[in-house]
Amino acid sequence: MAYELHYWTGIQGRGEFVRLAFEAAGAKYTDIAHTEGGMQRMQRKMADPKLARPPFACPFLVDGKRVIGQAALILHYIGPKLDLAGASKADRLWTHQVQLTIADFATEAHDVHHPVASSLYYEDQKPEALRRALEFRTKRMPKFMQWFETILERNKKPHLVGGKLSYADLSLFQMVAWMRYGFPKASAKVLKKAPLVRALHDGVAQHKRIALYLASDRRTPFNEDDLFRKYPELDG
Amino acid sequence: MAYELHYWTGIQGRGEFVRLAFEAAGAKYTDIAHTEGGMQRMQRKMADPKLARPPFACPFLVDGKRVIGQAALILHYIGPKLDLAGASKADRLWTHQVQLTIADFATEAHDVHHPVASSLYYEDQKPEALRRALEFRTKRMPKFMQWFETILERNKKPHLVGGKLSYADLSLFQMVAWMRYGFPKASAKVLKKAPLVRALHDGVAQHKRIALYLASDRRTPFNEDDLFRKYPELDG
Repeated sequence: MAYELHYWTGIQGRGEFVRLAFEAAGAKYTDIAHTEGGMQRMQRKMADPKLARPPFACPFLVDGKRVIGQAALILHYIGPKLDLAGASKADRLWTHQVQLTIADFATEAHDVHHPVASSLYYEDQKPEALRRALEFRTKRMPKFMQWFETILERNKKPHLVGGKLSYADLSLFQMVAWMRYGFPKASAKVLKKAPLVRALHDGVAQHKRIALYLASDRRTPFNEDDLFRKYPELDG
Repeated sequence: MAYELHYWTGIQGRGEFVRLAFEAAGAKYTDIAHTEGGMQRMQRKMADPKLARPPFACPFLVDGKRVIGQAALILHYIGPKLDLAGASKADRLWTHQVQLTIADFATEAHDVHHPVASSLYYEDQKPEALRRALEFRTKRMPKFMQWFETILERNKKPHLVGGKLSYADLSLFQMVAWMRYGFPKASAKVLKKAPLVRALHDGVAQHKRIALYLASDRRTPFNEDDLFRKYPELDG
């Protein structure tokens, strides 16, 4: 049975990290968000009282009887099966560690436009967002990107883990693509000092299956309902 | 060689999830925060240019030549060795999934008092914190606690995973203890509807080794430099 990815319709969000892995591997998966009645199916699944181990939130993966939540854990689970997580146990743990750090960065990126409450509109927390964005642009974004630059430098390969593509590479590609969309000015400045991160991004974008995916209608365009948004006033 | 836990001195923070696991298992570990010059050792280690895979932040674990960052990953790594993660592969993944959700909750808990910037004082982001606290008390705290209550109910045991103590139980204990410290009024209301979570907390508190640990000077008291803080105005 093919994997089922359950996530919101209309956004990339945290589901996109998983989609990129499936797409790069050419794996069979059903993207529930792109099926008719997909949102109802997802919500029914999450609320199913017979589910012994329900996820707290989406995205979650259905693999036969298994239901697995947390994007980074989904990748830790499918990574070795898709040959996207390094061969040794140490490599797999490290790939997961990098991914967990990317997940932290994604949460901070989201909270820039929602520093008060996810349940409120951006417009209702704009003064707070303007303050948080300053910290994000000038401290957090550079700190994360310098860490990625450092580990690329020490790995001496155009990949985060060992000598070949991993899901962590795909996710870092995604973060760079998003930063350039959401914070064109700030990210240009930060990425100027991270040439290896830029090269990794470009390498992933040229990956044959990823290039096809990005050009397809399976790739949801960036938009302002997403985890990652573009509000020019937050770019300084 | 004994495990080394590297973390900040003077706070519980994310290091406490790892400490509780070591303590419950009666495992040998060196808590670098409680050694002379520990902070310098930690910072030297993180900045060591010879470290091929440096952690992004503390806590991190040193196990011989291995250096592992991300609290949830440290637990995923040591959990099976300490017999605190369930026996099957599925149980171990589920324990990790629960822990990742606890990690998300801990981040939200921190951001209540620091919604704008970690680099600023609480006093410099108090209006924002007051707004964020309302959402946290009335929406997020109940949502997380109801999820834990649900999975305890479905597990039909006083544990989150299978029939015995796991590091996820220890971490949920820690979150309840902290909520009662930081949000005495709001947590009383929320926990009233989560009797299984309360029972789990009490069970862990009575665990022989944990009880000894909590009464020892190895347990740093809650304080307002910590990830988890008490500001009565945020409790509504």
